[in-house]
Amino acid sequence: MTVGVVGLGLIGGSLARLLRARGVDVVATDASPATRDAARAAGLTVADDVAGAVAGRGLVVLAVPLRAMRAVAAEVARHAEDAATVTDVGSVKGPVRAAVADAGLAGRYVGAHPMAGTERSGFESSDARLLDGAPWAVTVAPGTEPHRLAAVLGLITGPLAGTAAVLTDECHDEVAALVSHVPHVVATQLLNAVAGAPVRDVALGLAAGSFRDGTRVAFTDPARTEAMVTENAAWVAPALRKVVRDLEAVLEALEANAPVHEFFHAADTVRGAWVPGARPGGEAERVPLEGDWPAALLDRCAAGAVVVRLTATHAELAGTSPR
Amino acid sequence: MTVGVVGLGLIGGSLARLLRARGVDVVATDASPATRDAARAAGLTVADDVAGAVAGRGLVVLAVPLRAMRAVAAEVARHAEDAATVTDVGSVKGPVRAAVADAGLAGRYVGAHPMAGTERSGFESSDARLLDGAPWAVTVAPGTEPHRLAAVLGLITGPLAGTAAVLTDECHDEVAALVSHVPHVVATQLLNAVAGAPVRDVALGLAAGSFRDGTRVAFTDPARTEAMVTENAAWVAPALRKVVRDLEAVLEALEANAPVHEFFHAADTVRGAWVPGARPGGEAERVPLEGDWPAALLDRCAAGAVVVRLTATHAELAGTSPR
Repeated sequence: MTVGVVGLGLIGGSLARLLRARGVDVVATDASPATRDAARAAGLTVADDVAGAVAGRGLVVLAVPLRAMRAVAAEVARHAEDAATVTDVGSVKGPVRAAVADAGLAGRYVGAHPMAGTERSGFESSDARLLDGAPWAVTVAPGTEPHRLAAVLGLITGPLAGTAAVLTDECHDEVAALVSHVPHVVATQLLNAVAGAPVRDVALGLAAGSFRDGTRVAFTDPARTEAMVTENAAWVAPALRKVVRDLEAVLEALEANAPVHEFFHAADTVRGAWVPGARPGGEAERVPLEGDWPAALLDRCAAGAVVVRLTATHAELAGTSPR
Repeated sequence: MTVGVVGLGLIGGSLARLLRARGVDVVATDASPATRDAARAAGLTVADDVAGAVAGRGLVVLAVPLRAMRAVAAEVARHAEDAATVTDVGSVKGPVRAAVADAGLAGRYVGAHPMAGTERSGFESSDARLLDGAPWAVTVAPGTEPHRLAAVLGLITGPLAGTAAVLTDECHDEVAALVSHVPHVVATQLLNAVAGAPVRDVALGLAAGSFRDGTRVAFTDPARTEAMVTENAAWVAPALRKVVRDLEAVLEALEANAPVHEFFHAADTVRGAWVPGARPGGEAERVPLEGDWPAALLDRCAAGAVVVRLTATHAELAGTSPR
């Protein structure tokens, strides 16, 4: 497996560092000469341009900001081998697939999104440990060639030591809205509410754990958050509408001194059972890499299973619900 | 200074442990025999009932759940010395002052609220470090006797090594709604939205940092959160209404593909300047303990200053804005 990484920000940089640490043949590049110098100084093999990073590579990873995806995909299409599989690390998948398809790469594309990040950005914040063992979402569409999916799953569950949920773009983008984009919007709003309040100075002086945690991601680069949220607006808006409706119901109950017990206890089953960041338990299962095995993985992963290992003959899943 | 602590949950237990560690003469009690045994085993001096914990004490701390405050205040009123100052650690202040006043303790009461907590509860989770150096809010009302305020400020900035913002109940409860209660409601809603979604299992499998942080306080005891929020409904409801209105505006902009730049950048000044948990910078100031010095502290603290030290003759403040 030879990998080309285009873009050396927080995620691209962390990915290139981890791949190199695991002995994978990786060449990377970035549009910024200063970032390329920093990456070379960090021991990475760095090409001066996209052509140098993707020529002859078996797998090309687009790790550029969402707004740059379309232009970079077109550049990659000019230089990558026909046999190369193209993937990415973007936080939305439907729009990236559209951008990649417009560049003529639809048949070579498998979507990917590592569920990891920090409030920092840029190569200077990148760290091989950020992605080591991370949970990934991997997205397919009708016509995704199985050997390309296998290449991406092999990289994630092999050298990257992660897990992969195989999803449709739509499922990913709906889930990402729920567990990432809406939380980012809400965190931003919590911070905005205090920043705009007459009691702001007192509030910031007394803000403790609940505010700090609730607004942590609002301290990430707001331009990046804005791009992430607007790219996935089709899923974020309806999810946010449900949040607004439910919050309105609870505030009206508070105003009317009506019961709010149900609101506070609605998630009790999750509260008792979910351990954040834990690898899924449940039964293990082997899916043979035969017939339409990508469809079989889609089916299992829609129920919460993830791929933990890929061999030449089968995919090993964890977290499969009894069926 | 002799202290009686009534209630040995997370906060009362942590307070008693820290006071003892700092050499303060402290007697505590709890309604639960098992908790009293655990507290004795932890080396605390424990009385079997409220009478034993408050008789002869100079300062009595009500550290019971909000729903128990009224009954416990009445019990304390039967046994505490007339000279004793009564304070508490409740997360809302107006309702506690009302409960204490109904017990006939209005003239002896100074409100207090340590801005610290964890997602756990109960004496078994208590730890002297939880409150060591914590920021506190201390609340006064017209007629609060200065020597009682001094007793509470002296304890917080002395043996507890904390800081104290002197506020009205109303200011505290408005601020607490913004930095604690609304974040708790919003965290609960983020968790509810995922728990009730058809894609729940996939979502929980992929949930990473932003969801984990955004929902952390939703994993605290929901009954306690419900009590805290409903007790402060008068301030939580309007703050939540503003959150709902602002979220609705941003979601409608997302639906209409209209600009959302302002929403994501509204808090940029705070984003650049605020360091969560940092002691306030700004100028230091000494307020002499003469005349209506509680009013002087109220004035300074409303602008973000906090009391960091109390001597026999003056209060030392930090974070005072230039005026």
